[in-house]
Amino acid sequence: MTGKILVFDTTLRDGSQMEGMTFSLEDKKDIVSRLDDLKVDFIEGGMPQSNPTDEGLFSDPPKTEHAKLVAFGSTCRPGTHASDDIGLNRLADSDTEWICIFGKSWRFHLDNVLRITPEDNLALIRDSVRYLVSKGKKVIFDAEHYFDGFIDDKEFALSVVRAAHDAGAEWITLCDTNGGNLPTTIGRIVAETKDIVGCNIGIHCHNDSDLAVACTLAAVDSGARMVQGTINGIGERCGNANLCSVVPDLMLKMGYDTNVDLSKLTFVSRAISEISNIAHNSSMPYVGSKAFTHKAGMHIDALLKNPQTYEHVAPEAIGNRRNYLVSEQTGKAGISKKLMDLGMNSDDKHIDSVLKHIKDMESRGYQFEGADASLELLIRRECDNITPPFRIPSFRVYIDEIGGGVIKYESIIKVSNPSGEIEHTASDGNGPVDALNKALMKALTKFFPEVNNVRLIDYKVRVLDEKAATAAPVRVMIRSTDGKEQWTTVGVSTDIIEASLIALADSMEYHILKKNWREQ
Amino acid sequence: MTGKILVFDTTLRDGSQMEGMTFSLEDKKDIVSRLDDLKVDFIEGGMPQSNPTDEGLFSDPPKTEHAKLVAFGSTCRPGTHASDDIGLNRLADSDTEWICIFGKSWRFHLDNVLRITPEDNLALIRDSVRYLVSKGKKVIFDAEHYFDGFIDDKEFALSVVRAAHDAGAEWITLCDTNGGNLPTTIGRIVAETKDIVGCNIGIHCHNDSDLAVACTLAAVDSGARMVQGTINGIGERCGNANLCSVVPDLMLKMGYDTNVDLSKLTFVSRAISEISNIAHNSSMPYVGSKAFTHKAGMHIDALLKNPQTYEHVAPEAIGNRRNYLVSEQTGKAGISKKLMDLGMNSDDKHIDSVLKHIKDMESRGYQFEGADASLELLIRRECDNITPPFRIPSFRVYIDEIGGGVIKYESIIKVSNPSGEIEHTASDGNGPVDALNKALMKALTKFFPEVNNVRLIDYKVRVLDEKAATAAPVRVMIRSTDGKEQWTTVGVSTDIIEASLIALADSMEYHILKKNWREQ
Repeated sequence: MTGKILVFDTTLRDGSQMEGMTFSLEDKKDIVSRLDDLKVDFIEGGMPQSNPTDEGLFSDPPKTEHAKLVAFGSTCRPGTHASDDIGLNRLADSDTEWICIFGKSWRFHLDNVLRITPEDNLALIRDSVRYLVSKGKKVIFDAEHYFDGFIDDKEFALSVVRAAHDAGAEWITLCDTNGGNLPTTIGRIVAETKDIVGCNIGIHCHNDSDLAVACTLAAVDSGARMVQGTINGIGERCGNANLCSVVPDLMLKMGYDTNVDLSKLTFVSRAISEISNIAHNSSMPYVGSKAFTHKAGMHIDALLKNPQTYEHVAPEAIGNRRNYLVSEQTGKAGISKKLMDLGMNSDDKHIDSVLKHIKDMESRGYQFEGADASLELLIRRECDNITPPFRIPSFRVYIDEIGGGVIKYESIIKVSNPSGEIEHTASDGNGPVDALNKALMKALTKFFPEVNNVRLIDYKVRVLDEKAATAAPVRVMIRSTDGKEQWTTVGVSTDIIEASLIALADSMEYHILKKNWREQ
Repeated sequence: MTGKILVFDTTLRDGSQMEGMTFSLEDKKDIVSRLDDLKVDFIEGGMPQSNPTDEGLFSDPPKTEHAKLVAFGSTCRPGTHASDDIGLNRLADSDTEWICIFGKSWRFHLDNVLRITPEDNLALIRDSVRYLVSKGKKVIFDAEHYFDGFIDDKEFALSVVRAAHDAGAEWITLCDTNGGNLPTTIGRIVAETKDIVGCNIGIHCHNDSDLAVACTLAAVDSGARMVQGTINGIGERCGNANLCSVVPDLMLKMGYDTNVDLSKLTFVSRAISEISNIAHNSSMPYVGSKAFTHKAGMHIDALLKNPQTYEHVAPEAIGNRRNYLVSEQTGKAGISKKLMDLGMNSDDKHIDSVLKHIKDMESRGYQFEGADASLELLIRRECDNITPPFRIPSFRVYIDEIGGGVIKYESIIKVSNPSGEIEHTASDGNGPVDALNKALMKALTKFFPEVNNVRLIDYKVRVLDEKAATAAPVRVMIRSTDGKEQWTTVGVSTDIIEASLIALADSMEYHILKKNWREQ
């Protein structure tokens, strides 16, 4: 169970089939450079000249250190000769050495969709691969619907693989296009195919049965030596096999080798999520922010004795890190640990009052799990007796709809600094919280120009007692960044505006104060 | 490969260990009733008397038709006799027939955390199970870290299973607590354990290696006959095995039988997501809104010829539906069906414009799946050309904090009826939305005294684009009742106040109009 497995990333091609996903040319170049840095072996960039973005990518391919950029397309169309086919010639003319083309390997599709004979289908595949090889290309052939095809008509499916192999394809990728097969089925068919045809086999799985990772691993155990997938598992319907799970499973659990620099995995996963403008799934195995986050008090106690007690691998192996959440289940030990993490005295005499304060606030609906910055402020206010850098003596918000269906939002705020100076200002906004946020930022800039760097990147609202309807308390959590760090703050009130203001003010206070703490 | 598999849901217990997840007592009761409706066999509700919520749940257990409510706890503590152990006696005294307790089966934990001898550990398990059985309970024993324990010291791990079995446990659940094992390992160890001990085996997997579903299936193939997991895979770190994938895989792919009503799976998955206030993961296998959504033009062409070309199962089997992203056809049949349900003409000439209207609103963040009353209003406005019973020519909301830390909320509203009469009034409130709601109700009572019967019983807020922070659109869903019926309305805006007003106004309009429609 060892050997070198090549990693083929199709985030930019099959991943971009995800509903709502579009990459600009700049996005694509950025992702290529990060994937190269991660040291995947192949990066499938898209279909040259099928659209302006991919045209841009392939007409001036980004330089890579390790990874090979791959152009994707299909075999020539029925009724054309390979050398006359426009699509195939675009691939032949592209600047990339490696080309991936797909063809049909399920008779059901020939009969119901393509409506050509098996013999004509084999000819399309053979001619297309041969033509590209004759133009100096290295060809990867994707056998679409291979597993469904093998179950339906084994001899036909095998003849497709054999045709591509005999015509000179370097790799044959067996695709579970509909994502419907089980790992045992995938394993059996890969082994049989490898045995009969003897070619280099890649595996391409979709997650419709929640088994894409397991199917990919089963294929490798049966002899596949190239894994296809996407970062964060993005892709059409339920997505593709998630390389962020496949690669660490192969390397840390199964003894296989790849060229991937595993220590960069978490960083690249989160960066590509940012570029794709989709929230990073915090529960994702290995790379999610919750993957090594521990909540239950009993677990934390054991982890402090030995991390192996509740962790399957060391978070550092994939560039992630361990978190202990402070919650009503957390005892004194959790707070001590938190103080240590903050570089404070772990047996500070204020621990009991900190704990009491946290429990009080939790009973009012606060939650500090995840609200790292509000928790740190609470602890330092209690232990270090810090002076608040600003106060908000008053604020007002006006919401006016006085006809014409247009609502206006305006906020007035007073902010004072410790010397008693007051900045009194106002702002419009896109809603009441937005108006208040803008007014607060505007006022604070007077005393603390550095708050200008702060951007809010996440805003969550949770109604705490939904049955109390509009009079229920709500909890607001806000995530902020200054471009270098990210932090989260929390506010609770029966008024969403006040709850938001509490979280906003904590975020700004944290940003203003943290440079003092980090310099200690 | 056939047989009946029992489904054990631990959404309320292990699922609630997820970071940021808290269930109120009402949430828990609501979830129990939905799981019962889905016909899972066991519902693990929590730890009786460990906190007020679970105390409430177990002191007055909700009635179920099919599912058995299970209380969870641990074996007695080292150094106590089972009959003297407080926790165990709470379980013994609980109103539920079924009890699940966990114990250690990994020597590493005994040596590093618990610090007791293997013999003492076996005694704890034996005594605890025996004591509960003597009190008339049926016991499920969860062997924590079983697979890591088996690999570390096979004889010790087996002795734990044997002790629980001999003491009278009905089921032994083998747990991959750290989620680190591969399906092949899980399958091998389950088979060996079943072979040696011969007990009823359950399986409990975590998703840290992205393999929880595959490991659960491998265990079943090796003889496990109970699967533990959570709805939507929620749980600590990377979550538990997702029952929404495990159950359809077992039933639709592997030929096993369960008691679950698969046709309700999508509905229950989404309902529990709403109750948990976490966005439903649209890419989730089987139940996600994208699971049967097709984007590529070529795929759609093939699907129209035969859905099997690009779908692994029929979406109806799990109560989901197919979507074509670029097709005009989407949902026409669904709207026809809805018109019939409302006693209207199913081929009304306005169907196309209704559909267009719905699509427009959905693209702005509306969602009508749970908002029955807003959907009915939209349809009747389009098809029946109804006259709105009232309009809101203007409103204002003031939020004032002018010192002393006290915030005042006041709302002014004008409401007009179809004859042009205007009621101009105002109200205070417990927050801005509450003030607006009270002012609206007060004004409406003038024209429609019956709105006095309406109470709001549920208020949910979902931030639709969390990255846009305070300028993001929010969706508000409000559930109302007049004591006889309940109905839900929806509003979307970048302003939570406006979104709430839209949903409030729809709720009142629906209440005022529905008596005409129902009397037809």
